[in-house]
Parts: sequence; C-alpha cells; structure tokens
Amino acid sequence: MDYTFDPPSNHDLSSMYRSGRNAQKVWTENGIDYRIDILQKWKKAYESRSDELINALATDTGRIHETILEVETIPKSIDRWCDIAKELFGNSEPKLSSIPFIAMEQHTVPYSLVGVISPWNVPNLLAHIDAIPALLAGSSVIIKPSEFTPRFVEPLQHIVESVHELSDVLQYVQGDGNTGALLLDEVDLICFTGSVATGKKVGQQAAKNFIPAFLELGGKDAAIVLESANLEKAASAILWGSVVNAGQSCLSIERVYCMESVYNSFLSILTEKANAIQLAYPEMDSGQIGPIISPNQTEIIELHLEDAISKGAHVHRGGSIEHHGGGDWVRPTVLSQVNHSMKIMTEETFGPIIPIMSVSSQDEAIHYANDTEYGLSGAVFGEESVAKSIAKKIEAGAISINDAGLTSILYDGEKNSFKSSGLGGSRMGPTSIQRFFRKKVLYTNTNSQNDPWWFN
Amino acid sequence: MDYTFDPPSNHDLSSMYRSGRNAQKVWTENGIDYRIDILQKWKKAYESRSDELINALATDTGRIHETILEVETIPKSIDRWCDIAKELFGNSEPKLSSIPFIAMEQHTVPYSLVGVISPWNVPNLLAHIDAIPALLAGSSVIIKPSEFTPRFVEPLQHIVESVHELSDVLQYVQGDGNTGALLLDEVDLICFTGSVATGKKVGQQAAKNFIPAFLELGGKDAAIVLESANLEKAASAILWGSVVNAGQSCLSIERVYCMESVYNSFLSILTEKANAIQLAYPEMDSGQIGPIISPNQTEIIELHLEDAISKGAHVHRGGSIEHHGGGDWVRPTVLSQVNHSMKIMTEETFGPIIPIMSVSSQDEAIHYANDTEYGLSGAVFGEESVAKSIAKKIEAGAISINDAGLTSILYDGEKNSFKSSGLGGSRMGPTSIQRFFRKKVLYTNTNSQNDPWWFN
Repeated sequence: MDYTFDPPSNHDLSSMYRSGRNAQKVWTENGIDYRIDILQKWKKAYESRSDELINALATDTGRIHETILEVETIPKSIDRWCDIAKELFGNSEPKLSSIPFIAMEQHTVPYSLVGVISPWNVPNLLAHIDAIPALLAGSSVIIKPSEFTPRFVEPLQHIVESVHELSDVLQYVQGDGNTGALLLDEVDLICFTGSVATGKKVGQQAAKNFIPAFLELGGKDAAIVLESANLEKAASAILWGSVVNAGQSCLSIERVYCMESVYNSFLSILTEKANAIQLAYPEMDSGQIGPIISPNQTEIIELHLEDAISKGAHVHRGGSIEHHGGGDWVRPTVLSQVNHSMKIMTEETFGPIIPIMSVSSQDEAIHYANDTEYGLSGAVFGEESVAKSIAKKIEAGAISINDAGLTSILYDGEKNSFKSSGLGGSRMGPTSIQRFFRKKVLYTNTNSQNDPWWFN
Repeated sequence: MDYTFDPPSNHDLSSMYRSGRNAQKVWTENGIDYRIDILQKWKKAYESRSDELINALATDTGRIHETILEVETIPKSIDRWCDIAKELFGNSEPKLSSIPFIAMEQHTVPYSLVGVISPWNVPNLLAHIDAIPALLAGSSVIIKPSEFTPRFVEPLQHIVESVHELSDVLQYVQGDGNTGALLLDEVDLICFTGSVATGKKVGQQAAKNFIPAFLELGGKDAAIVLESANLEKAASAILWGSVVNAGQSCLSIERVYCMESVYNSFLSILTEKANAIQLAYPEMDSGQIGPIISPNQTEIIELHLEDAISKGAHVHRGGSIEHHGGGDWVRPTVLSQVNHSMKIMTEETFGPIIPIMSVSSQDEAIHYANDTEYGLSGAVFGEESVAKSIAKKIEAGAISINDAGLTSILYDGEKNSFKSSGLGGSRMGPTSIQRFFRKKVLYTNTNSQNDPWWFN
C-alpha cells in the first residue's frame, strides 16, 4: 500500500477522549436546534469537498459508481436525521402519571462519548451511519475507519476543521485493531460494523467495560425463487444483489434456492445476464464490478470456490480470481450442483458468487434459508401473498419481496439482526436514534397539602 | 435453613429448554388475543392461591406488609400489560415506504426462550416484572429465583400447572448461581436483577453467547434536601424511602445531602421519626421493619457501620445488628458527621441506614450525589423548579421530586440505569416490552410493470 499513517499514541488518544468529553457538555446543553444548525454547516462543508472524498475512496476501493453513491448519501442522511430529531426532541411537556397527584416528565440524557469502528467495504457510509444520529442525540463521536481504506479520513478531517463548532465533537482516528481495542476501553457506547469474529470480541470487551454495544455483522443472505416468480426480473434483482460492490456487502445475496420446476430456466437466464457484466478495468467506468478490496477476502473467496468445486459444484460462469493492475478481481460466478456441505452455502463469502440450489418445496427452501448462523436479510420472488408468507418464516431482519437488497436504500423500517448477524437495537428506522441516549424520568409529588404518597 | 431443594440435573434443564422452545412456537403463532386470555386465566389461578404465596414469602423474608404488596402487584401488572400489549400488536398494516412503489410492513419476532434470574430482596415482584411482558411478547420464559427465598416457587408451579396452556411457556427452576450460569448458556435473552458484581459476570457470559442481556443492578440513591424543602415531609419521605424492606431495595435512599442552614432541624426531625419505627418482632405485625434476609448482607451492613464509626460518624439512633428469633435485625440508623471516605457513603449498604451530610451549596450537593459508580434513582426536596433543575443534573434514571422511591410504584416512565447500575433498554414504560422481540421489515416491490428499482 502506497499510503501510510502512524497509529495514534496513547497520549493522542487521551487528548481526543478529553476534548470529546469536554465539548460534549456544550454540544448537548446548546440543544437540538443548535445541533441541527451545525450539522447543516457540516453538510455544506462536506458537499464542497465531495470530489476529494470521491477521489480518496475510489483510490482505496477501485470503484467509482458505488463511491459516488456512498458520498452522496451522507448529505441526504444528515437532512433526514435533522428532520427526525426535530420531532423527537420537541415534546418534553410534563403530564400526569397513573397516580393523579404525581406529575411526570420524560428526559433524554445522551451518552457522552460514542465510539464508531467501521469497515472497509462501504467505508464512508458505514463510518457515518451511526455517527449522524449520535451527534444529533447530543453525543460526542470518535470514528475509527478501517485501516484498509484510510485515504478518505484526511478530507473528512479537513471538512470538520472548517466547522469549528464540530471539531471536538466529531473526531476521526486512523488505526488498526489495536487502536479499536484502546478506543473500546474509553468510550461510553460502541457501534461496530464488521465481521462476526471481531464483533464477538467487541461485544465481550464492551460487556467487561459495562457499556452498550451495537453490533452489525456478517450475513449469508438467501434468495428464494418460486414457480410463480417473474424469472427475468428475479434474475436481474438477484444478479445485482449479489455483484454490486463485487459482493462486498453484508447484505449481498450469497445463495439462491430455486424451485426445481423453474430451476433450469432461471439458471440459464441468470447465467446470460451474468455474462453481460464487465470488470471496471482498465478504467473505473469500463464495467460494473470493482476489485476485491481486502487481500484477506481474496483468500476466503478462493477457499470457498475450491471447496465447492472439489465437492462437485459446476461453474457456469466466472469461478476464479483474476489479477489485473496489482489488484484481485472476480467475475460474477454462477454455480449449480451445490449443497450445504459446501462452505459457499454456509459461510460468508463476501464476493460476487451466486450458487443456485434446486429445491422441491417451499418448506425445503425455508429450511435451507434458515440453515445458517446468520440472520441479516433475504429476498423472496413470486406471487406476493405466498412470497410474504415465506418471508415471515425466514429468520432475518429485513426481507425484500420481488426485489433484492431494498434495505440498503430504505431507512424507514426497523430491523434487528438475527442470530450471529448482530446485537443491540435497530440501526434503521427513526427510533434508532434512541440507542444514543438514556431515558430519565422526573416524578413530582404535586400535592402540597398531603404527606408523601404512602401515608395517604 | 429448614427448607431444602435439589438443584436440577443437566437432564432436567435440557428437558425444560426443549419443552419451552417447543411450546413457544404455538404460543406465538396463536396470537396476542390468545396470550391475553391465558394470562387472564393465570391471574385468576394466582389470585386463588395468593394466601399460599404470602405464607411462603413471609416465611422466607420475615415480613408481611411488603409481602402482601408484592403478591397483590402481580395481577395488576398482568392487567396493565394485557392492555398495553393489545394496542402494541394491533397495527401491522402495510404502508408505503419513502420510495413510492415499495410497500413496507413491520413485524415483530419474539425471542424464543427468555431467562430470568431474580433476587431475594423482593422475590415475587422481581421474578415476574420482566416475565409478564416477555410472555405477552410471545416468548417462553424460565425463571430462576434466588436460592435464599425458595419457598414461593412451589406455589407458583402449582398455579401454572392449573393453567395447562401456560405450563411449558412459563417454567420456574430452583437453583443457585451454578444453575443460573447453565441457564445463561441456553436461553436467547437474559434478564438479570441482582448485584453489580454478578451482573458484570452475567453481561460478559451473555456477550460470549451473543445474546441480549438486560441488567438491573445495585444503587446508592441520594436524596438532596434544600432550604426551601418542607422538612417534615422530606423527613417522612426519606425515612420511608430508606427503611422500607429494611433497606433491602436497589432504590432505597442510602445517603442524604442536606443544606447546612436546615441541617440541624432536619436531623432532629428525622431522628425523632426514626425513633417511632419498630421491628416487626416478635410478631410480623409488631412493627414496620423486617429482618435482614441474606446473611451475607448482614456482614456488609456491619462492615459499613464499623468503617463509618471508626472514621468519626456519629450515631443518633440504631447503629448495630440485633439478633432475635434466629434472625438479624437492624433498627433505622441515623448517622451524622459522615463523608465520602466512608463506605457508607459510596458503596451499596442495602440496610436501613440513613447517613446525612451537610452541604453548603447546590453544586456541592450535586457533586456528591454524582460521586458514585451507581446511577439508579434519587430524590430532591425543595421548591419545585429549583428541585427539578437539580434533578436534571443527577446522573440517574429516575428522580422523585418532593417524595422518594416513586419509581417503585409508577410504571409509566421510561428510565435507564446509569453507570454501573444496569445495562440495556428500559424495564419501565410501555416500550419495555420491545426488549423481547426483534423488529423485522418486509419491503415489497409492488411495481409489476418495472424492473427492480436500480434499473429505474
């Protein structure tokens, strides 16, 4: 890697914690209207430097379409959260409790210092997805993005420096897992997006430190294709849902269960569509698929492919790692003759691989969809009411019907991660901001004539 | 102890987990109206045997007034939760998302098997406070009450056996910490009420097992008495808030900060009122204060008193452990000349001890109130607006104004435990039922004319 940074010293980190905590007092006391104003300033500063961000991210990830999307999404997210926060913090009127002479008022007390540890696969979006509501809730935030995609941190720091009211409440730090572990020992709440293995460690360290942990981890999303599905559309949706970001999304479609009556037709339509996808090489706009970002991930993809092929999987398209311009690339890979003895059907691959298994009944499809330690999201294609009844039986937090990956563009619905895919309250939906404050109630005995209630 | 039980074998426990999980499928599928019906049957069966429960609990705790209260509170709690749950599960209508041709519906998926580990200080209330909303949410529940107060478990089991629809979804198990640890390795969610030390272990084991943990732990609740307070009423409220349950409540008032201008008056009023409190001995209705339930707790109270007295605390009333009828008893103990070098001001005592410290300003009172690792609740006495402004600065989840312990009788407000007093969502307030299910969203592409959204 031709970009290096020095990890922060303990002294640097201590200074960040201290300034973050100090600044948070004013940040929360100044109220929600103030915080909205400052975040709008941040938005403008961010927009004025979005080209720098896009360049930095494109250099680290080797992709342009997804980079533009993830840079453009932040201002929209700031606006959406500013609208929601205005409503949320609007009403703190006292009211009567269930005992008539006792009044109650509900207050919110933000966690002082929130830590965010974010991954390399969608670096900018995932660095900010929890940080924006945390800031509006009144917390101070320290973000540690992945050391695999470090370049965008400097432009982000320049943006924040230009909005001086924000400079101590929104801090970025470059570092690897060691820095993350140090951060975990100091913050009051942690948001972590990454692998299940690291997530479990983060959860345990948080429990030891007695702080809330919100974990968004891996997935092995299944798509189910019913007889009644529009096969053309299902194939388009599944292909996109699998190959966007070169499969490097926690909510990629990683396996397909197709009813046997339409299996052959679906397989040939999907393979044909997969053939039309090009690598984004030699130019970033030469095609739709970028490179594999993390070298560790290449090894996993290779291992899963070898394992599947050695156990009898048939490759219809793609199937190997290609090396171009110093990077690793994988073409959309369509596999048939797959089963659950193969890692490709049960472990997270994080690549543009579409293994398709034939099933003979809806129950069988549901059984296999749930035969996994993951429970992030999924998709069902077919007549709507049947598809919904199946969706309800899939153990995952968000299911797209006759589409794929809708939860990556819609923030409306609340969803929890099931099983090993995560822990803690919903990151999506308006109530997700509540993760960043504690509820506090004031009960007032308003009856000046009487003794305390238990003497009444 | 003249009552013994055999801890469950691994085989017994496995059988409980299996029957709990199996029964939960039907329990959740049958819907909320069914669950409300069965809980109403349970309520009737419970009420018909409340005398047995009262006898068992009174024998184990040595107190009658609080026992009657905590036995009577369960039917009320069932009714309150049945009302709330009816509303909560009423609306699952599909609606449009922020993308016009994508519809969304929000579903709830209860955790299958919920574990409850509850303490000896308010055995019946705390065994059921989380179990009732969990059952209505659609979970199966296994409750392990404290081994120090085991007698009420048999009547509870008889009650459940008389409502056969409930018998596998609400199970009680007798056991100590070992049984608790085994339970933690099998359930999908744990609710724990107990000490900070054990709570930290529970949190870490839950994180290792990757399940949500809701911890409600100790407290060191402070009361602040301002110049403007009605001293008579403040003294009554603080006395009651400190000595009810012989101080064996997490939200007992354990320390008082009184403005120096009214300090002497307040001390003498409080001491006089404390003098009027009698031990509930030789008969349970001979007085207001029962014995210390757990022998370990006697040692802690003794240690804190010795430490305070050795460092200069002055005893105005009480101050020693008394032994009557095979039990340990502590009279309301009023201390002055106390400071924060003493355990009695900083560690949880869990006894009817009222140390009163003079302070010279509101800021000093707030400083000392927050000089603790605990953050459960508290109280402020004085002119309402000033008292509220102080209450907002106390780092705790529920503050009573001109009264004490209101959060023990009011379930309306949401409150989180601050600092080491707990972790996880609010146990109080209507939204606390949401702790027992995962949110799940179904997004449907309703546009049969168009390709999936990303081609639009």
